[in-house]
Amino acid sequence: MVARTNRPTLRQVAALSGVSVKTASRALNAEPYVSAATAAKVRAAAEQLGFRRNAIARDLRAGARSTLVGLIIGDLANPFYSRLARGAERRLRSSGLPLITASSEEDPQLEQRLIAEMLERRVSALLVVSSAAEHAYLDAERRLGLPVVFLDRAPQDIVADTIVIDNERGVRQGVDHLVRQGHRRIGLVGDLGRLSTHRERVAAFGAALTAAGAGDWQRYVRADSHDVPAAERAVRELLALTPAPTALITTNNRITTGALRVLRELAAPPALVGFDDFDLADLLGVSVIAHDPERMGELGAELIVTRLAGDDGPARRVLLPTRLVPRGSGERRPAHLDETV
Amino acid sequence: MVARTNRPTLRQVAALSGVSVKTASRALNAEPYVSAATAAKVRAAAEQLGFRRNAIARDLRAGARSTLVGLIIGDLANPFYSRLARGAERRLRSSGLPLITASSEEDPQLEQRLIAEMLERRVSALLVVSSAAEHAYLDAERRLGLPVVFLDRAPQDIVADTIVIDNERGVRQGVDHLVRQGHRRIGLVGDLGRLSTHRERVAAFGAALTAAGAGDWQRYVRADSHDVPAAERAVRELLALTPAPTALITTNNRITTGALRVLRELAAPPALVGFDDFDLADLLGVSVIAHDPERMGELGAELIVTRLAGDDGPARRVLLPTRLVPRGSGERRPAHLDETV
Repeated sequence: MVARTNRPTLRQVAALSGVSVKTASRALNAEPYVSAATAAKVRAAAEQLGFRRNAIARDLRAGARSTLVGLIIGDLANPFYSRLARGAERRLRSSGLPLITASSEEDPQLEQRLIAEMLERRVSALLVVSSAAEHAYLDAERRLGLPVVFLDRAPQDIVADTIVIDNERGVRQGVDHLVRQGHRRIGLVGDLGRLSTHRERVAAFGAALTAAGAGDWQRYVRADSHDVPAAERAVRELLALTPAPTALITTNNRITTGALRVLRELAAPPALVGFDDFDLADLLGVSVIAHDPERMGELGAELIVTRLAGDDGPARRVLLPTRLVPRGSGERRPAHLDETV
Repeated sequence: MVARTNRPTLRQVAALSGVSVKTASRALNAEPYVSAATAAKVRAAAEQLGFRRNAIARDLRAGARSTLVGLIIGDLANPFYSRLARGAERRLRSSGLPLITASSEEDPQLEQRLIAEMLERRVSALLVVSSAAEHAYLDAERRLGLPVVFLDRAPQDIVADTIVIDNERGVRQGVDHLVRQGHRRIGLVGDLGRLSTHRERVAAFGAALTAAGAGDWQRYVRADSHDVPAAERAVRELLALTPAPTALITTNNRITTGALRVLRELAAPPALVGFDDFDLADLLGVSVIAHDPERMGELGAELIVTRLAGDDGPARRVLLPTRLVPRGSGERRPAHLDETV
């Protein structure tokens, strides 16, 4: 590391302005008992020397806790996460709390290491989109007074503040919409099977199809399509079945992209409804189950601010609404219906 | 803020393991002069109590400087920035340096405030995509030994490490490609006029068109289209001119999206080449001038690591290459040429 011997000190600011170190400190921190003239003199000296207050020392004096809030997401380059992060950042900034973001790449080990690093630097609170199955170590921190809010994925092993999408209702909206167009053989291409969001979406999918009288839905479910190429493979696999599904539900934006790459090659593509809205989905005519990731980040930040202000009430669970946006791909009817008309 | 009276202290860890505070500290920081047996005993006690080392105090002792690196970008929700941030984050993580990211929303005042906050918390280095025209205050920090790397936009008033796209060559590739299809009246829809990237791209645009014998190019230039609706308005304005441009260059991903929204309504849309590649551009058949924002973040982080390791050589300027990706929209010929064939 570069040596920092030439950084101006508070002592030098005090000397240049002809006051004591204590007075200089009071003037720079806008504390009382300093005349306006003295304060101006000290500020001018600080500016001349390029002096900056030390927020680390200030945080440390305030009880070994910084004002930083930590956010763990899967991958900053996925628009779902970057929108969530923007929502959290804006809300926290308005309360003077800076945000540190780190990406776990959906790796539970890396996630735990990143959280440990954040705890060592005494973040004041944590927002976590967790890809791990175990959260006991975080529960210990919560009991020590650290606000922790889980976003998007509810922890299964502990009770904590959680903000999630209404996955059950969202998937039901999608399935019901396809069923109304005459579809019964509907495929689902899903994310990592160990994620709670995946399990919730598959359960809702099965319930909605069973209610519609389609008993063999499990044949048409594929999991673990965590990137675009994996989603492409899963879609090709489903479409090669006999009989093939006449419609698909993709459970996140990446998977929808993979499906679109396959479907554009087909003369008579199956219907498609994707979970997550995304940029340009309107231009591509993709029907989606939309929700608001930015709002999720904002509400998480809001809850952190409330907890930091002393609210120690029971853990809260916030459910975010979804809405079906028809744009063409989800309104295609099964080929046999159109043929027999 | 929540009181943190129940956080276990190093003193408690030392008491539980029956050693002095100094020995406990050495054991937890893996320093020499502690037997393996003692170290194991102290670690077990720390784990039992839920003790965590204090990275703030450690950073402070190491010379009032943390290991945090600060990154200022325009907007986390823009994929250009989120990819850049991911590249920087990955490279810094491999050197044990956590990243704090903040969005300036292209507001020079907010940018300066965010940087001041980061400096007060003694970040060890700064990566900045600056939307400001003045950087003298940052130059003062650089002279005090703070590594600062400018990304995407070169500072005009100071000499500093800079990583930028080869805007001149990129725009020339786009214009030459359109000229080869027979276009001479080419419109340019650009970002905020005060940004160096905008000025460089417009200058390259004018030079390439002048070389192609199109003298009245300035009529077809529009600036300050910083969001999708503004880009839509600018495109409509250009297409209403007589004679209208037969091709468009859009200078970033957001502007390209705006242009696509207008062009899809037209029976005979003008040709289009967009600066920045983006998700789904292939499915939409959009020809682009591509570059690698993740690589920009990575190289910026690389340079920070080198500077922190003591490299105090002269400021460096890295130029990132661009490449034209033809996908259909940039290969449309002017209508009059096709008619007269």
